[in-house]
Amino acid sequence: MPLSAAETITQLTGIIGADFVIGEPQRMTSYLNEPRKRFHTGAAAIALPGSVAEVQAILRWANANGVGIIPQGGNTGLVGGQVPLRGDEVILSTARLDRIRAIDPAAGTMTAESGVILANAHTAAENAGVILPLWLASQGSARIGGVLSTNAGGVNVLAYGNARDLTMGVEAVLADGRLYQGLNSLKKDNTGYDLKNLLVGAEGTLGIITAATLKIFPQPEDYETAMVSIANLDAALELFQYLRARARRRLSAYEIIPRLGLDMQLRQGMLDRDPTPGPSPWYALIEVARLTKGASGTLMAAIEGAFSEGILENAVFAESLSDRTRMWAAREQMSEVQSKEGASIKHDVSVPIAEIPRLISEGIAAVERLVPGIRPVPFGHMGDGNIHFNFSQPVGADPKAFMAGAEPIHNAIYDIVLKLGGSVSAEHGIGQLKVDLLRQVKDPVALEMMRSIKTALDPNGILNPGKVLGF
Amino acid sequence: MPLSAAETITQLTGIIGADFVIGEPQRMTSYLNEPRKRFHTGAAAIALPGSVAEVQAILRWANANGVGIIPQGGNTGLVGGQVPLRGDEVILSTARLDRIRAIDPAAGTMTAESGVILANAHTAAENAGVILPLWLASQGSARIGGVLSTNAGGVNVLAYGNARDLTMGVEAVLADGRLYQGLNSLKKDNTGYDLKNLLVGAEGTLGIITAATLKIFPQPEDYETAMVSIANLDAALELFQYLRARARRRLSAYEIIPRLGLDMQLRQGMLDRDPTPGPSPWYALIEVARLTKGASGTLMAAIEGAFSEGILENAVFAESLSDRTRMWAAREQMSEVQSKEGASIKHDVSVPIAEIPRLISEGIAAVERLVPGIRPVPFGHMGDGNIHFNFSQPVGADPKAFMAGAEPIHNAIYDIVLKLGGSVSAEHGIGQLKVDLLRQVKDPVALEMMRSIKTALDPNGILNPGKVLGF
Repeated sequence: MPLSAAETITQLTGIIGADFVIGEPQRMTSYLNEPRKRFHTGAAAIALPGSVAEVQAILRWANANGVGIIPQGGNTGLVGGQVPLRGDEVILSTARLDRIRAIDPAAGTMTAESGVILANAHTAAENAGVILPLWLASQGSARIGGVLSTNAGGVNVLAYGNARDLTMGVEAVLADGRLYQGLNSLKKDNTGYDLKNLLVGAEGTLGIITAATLKIFPQPEDYETAMVSIANLDAALELFQYLRARARRRLSAYEIIPRLGLDMQLRQGMLDRDPTPGPSPWYALIEVARLTKGASGTLMAAIEGAFSEGILENAVFAESLSDRTRMWAAREQMSEVQSKEGASIKHDVSVPIAEIPRLISEGIAAVERLVPGIRPVPFGHMGDGNIHFNFSQPVGADPKAFMAGAEPIHNAIYDIVLKLGGSVSAEHGIGQLKVDLLRQVKDPVALEMMRSIKTALDPNGILNPGKVLGF
Repeated sequence: MPLSAAETITQLTGIIGADFVIGEPQRMTSYLNEPRKRFHTGAAAIALPGSVAEVQAILRWANANGVGIIPQGGNTGLVGGQVPLRGDEVILSTARLDRIRAIDPAAGTMTAESGVILANAHTAAENAGVILPLWLASQGSARIGGVLSTNAGGVNVLAYGNARDLTMGVEAVLADGRLYQGLNSLKKDNTGYDLKNLLVGAEGTLGIITAATLKIFPQPEDYETAMVSIANLDAALELFQYLRARARRRLSAYEIIPRLGLDMQLRQGMLDRDPTPGPSPWYALIEVARLTKGASGTLMAAIEGAFSEGILENAVFAESLSDRTRMWAAREQMSEVQSKEGASIKHDVSVPIAEIPRLISEGIAAVERLVPGIRPVPFGHMGDGNIHFNFSQPVGADPKAFMAGAEPIHNAIYDIVLKLGGSVSAEHGIGQLKVDLLRQVKDPVALEMMRSIKTALDPNGILNPGKVLGF
C-alpha cells in the first residue's frame, strides 16, 4: 500500500532530519513553480539531502516503498521534468550537494557536485584562470546535475560542444541506492559500455547524478563580437559556412535573430538602444575567441571578405564591453520578451544545418496559414542546426483563444522538422511535456530499447516516474 | 537442444544461400586466425549476409535457436572479440555490407555500411575533397563496424576525437532481429537515452551495427611534421603542453617513441635510415595541420620557442613526403618490430596525462625487478594519456619461458595504472582477453549496470557470447 504524505514525511525525517524535509504546501511553492507555469501538481514532500550517502539512503527507502523520486536542481527546466506528475512523489533537491570537489587547470578538469549552480562553477573556473564553457540563459539558477541530466546546450556548443561533450565522468546513485562511481578524467577508456553518456541526458530516470568531472579550458585572450545584417536565411547559412571555414573552432557563437524580436525588446524598454547596424529582416550575432598568442582581427577580416563577396549587408562590431553586453542581451532576452508580448507557442527543434532556411520559411508559411497575423520569432543556434521556433500571438488577440489553437501549430512545425530529418527536442529534453510527442515521432525500436534499459535499471519505476518514456 | 554444426549450416543456407555460408574448416581459417594468434577455437560456420534484411533474418533465427553470433569486420581486433570462445558460434562477417550510402561534404557527413574497409572510407572522403580523420595502423583491413564497436582511437584523437566522437548516428540489428534506425546527422537531439554511444564500444554484445553516419572534415592544406629529441618524459609532457597551448586543435599528433624501438627497426631493416635528429632516450613525433588560409610555420615557431626555453634537445623537420613517411613508419612499425625481436608482453593503458611520466618510470622499474634484461618499449599517444606499454623479451631468452612469466608483469603494470586512476584498456577493448581483468578492476556497480543492460537487450545471450562481461 502506498505511503501517505504524512508517513512519507515522517520516514524521510528519520533518514535526513527534520530540518531538511519540507512538507508544508506553502513552503513547497518555489520547488513546484516551474518557469513556464504549465504544471501544477503537488508533491508529498521535498527532501534536501546533504551528502551522497543521504541520497543513497533516500533511494534505498524509496525503492523499498515504491515512492517516486523527482531529482531537481535549479528548477529551470522547460519541459516539466523536475516537477511532479501524480502528486505523491518526493522532490529530491540537490541544492545542498554544492561542493566543488577539485579543480585542476593543468589537467583541464573540474569535479563538481550536482547541486553546484552553473554560474558558481563558472566563477570557480575563472578564479583558477580557466573557463567552463557552458553558458545558458538560466545559469544563475541551473545546477550542474540538471544541466547534465538534460544534456543542456547553450550559446557555445559550436566551439566546445554540449553538456555531454564537456563531461568526462559522472557519479550517480541508482534506483536502489547503489553508487555508480564513474568519475574519471581519462581521454580514452574502452572498458565496457558507455554508462556516462547513458546517465547524461536521461533526465534523472536512470539514476541521480551526484557529481561530475567536467572539462575546463584556457581563457581566451578576448573576443571579437559583431552584429551583422543579413537579407535572408540562405545568406545567413552561407555566411556561417564562410566564417566557419576561416575561424574554425574559434567561431564560438553564431546566433540568428529576427528584426521582429529586436523591435519587441526596444518597445518593451529592454534595450537602451538598437545594437544592430540598421534595419534588416535578419541579424546574426557572431563571436570569435582570440586565444593567447593568437592573431587578432580574425572576425573583422572574415566579415570584410564576406562583405566584398556580397554575402552580408552590413555589420557593426562591439567596441566596448557595454556594446558586447547589449548585443548579447538582445539575444538572451528573446525568450523573455515574448512573455511581455502576450501568449506564445514555442518549439525547440533541430535539423541538419543546411535545412534551416527551409525549416524557417516553410514553418512560417504553414503557421501563418493557420493563424493570420501571428508573429513568428524564430531565433537561436544556427551553427548547431538548433532553432527556437517560437510564435507570439497576433497583436490584440485573446491569449487564451490563441493558446487553444496551439495543437495544429505544433503539428505543422513538427511535421516539417521530421520531414527534414530533424529532432523535436534539440536541447530542452522530453520531461512530461513531450512524452506523447516522443511516442509518436521516435523510431519505435529506439523507444523499445529505452524502455528495456529503464526497466533493467529501475525495475520499480521510482526514478522520475512518468517522465521521458511515460512510465 | 543446441543445433549441430551441420544443422546450423543447412539452416543458414536456407536464409542467405549456399554461396554465402562457409562450413568447411579449411575455408574458415582467415576468419579464425586473429592478429595475435592467441585464440584457436573453431566456429560452426561463417555467414556473409549481403543486406541489412539478411542480418535481421540471421539474428531472428539465431535468437530463436540459441545460436551465438559473433560479428566480425576486418578481423584486426587485438583482444579476441571477433573470434569464437566456445566453438559452436556463427561468425557473421560484415564484409558484403560495403556500400558508402551517402557523402555530403557541405553537411560534413558520410554514411557508410559497417563492412566498408576504413581505408576505402578514407578514399571516398578524399575523392569528395574532405577527410575522415580516423587513422589506425590496421586501416587497410579494419572495417567501419569493428572500428565503431571497439571505439577505436588511432593517431589523430588529439585533434578529432575517437570513433565515438566521430559518429553521429548508427543503424543496428538487435539480438532478435529488430532494426534500430538511429542514423542521423543532427548536432543536437535530446529525445531520450543516448543509444548511439551505448552501441558504439559495446563490441557487438548489444547489437550489430550495420551502418553509421560519420563526421568528415575539410582537408588540411598540408602538415608540418617533426621528430624531436627529448631527454626524459617530464620534458615530453612539458613540450606537449607547450605545443598544445600554441597550436591548439591543429596539433594533430604527439606520439612518443623510445630509442630502443628505433634501434630494433634499424636492426631489422625496417627503416632505410634513422629519422631522428640523433641519439636520445626518447623522441616525440609531432604533427600540426595547416588549414586553408591558415598561417604556416606554426610548428617551426613553437619548436624554436621550446628549444630556447630548454624543453627539448634537438629537432628535425620533414622536408619531403618521404621524410614524413619515414617518420610515421618509425611510429607505426613499433608494434610489428616487436614480433621480430622475439616474444613480447603488451598493455594498452591510459592514465591522466600528467601521470604518464610516473606510469612509465614506475612501470619500467617494477618490471625490470621481475625480469632483469627485459626490454621496455612503451610508445604511443601521449596527448591522449594512452601508452602501449610493451615489453620485449631479454635478448637470447627463451620466448616460451618469457611468456610463462607474463602474469606478474601484467599485475605490476595494471596495479600502477589503477593507482594512477587509469584504464586497463584504453583503445583495444575487452573482447575475451580481458574479461577476467575487467571483473577484477572495474567499479562493481558499473559491471552490474552493464550486466543489466546486456540482459535487457539480449535476453538469450546470443550476441558475441562470453565477450566483455563473460556471458
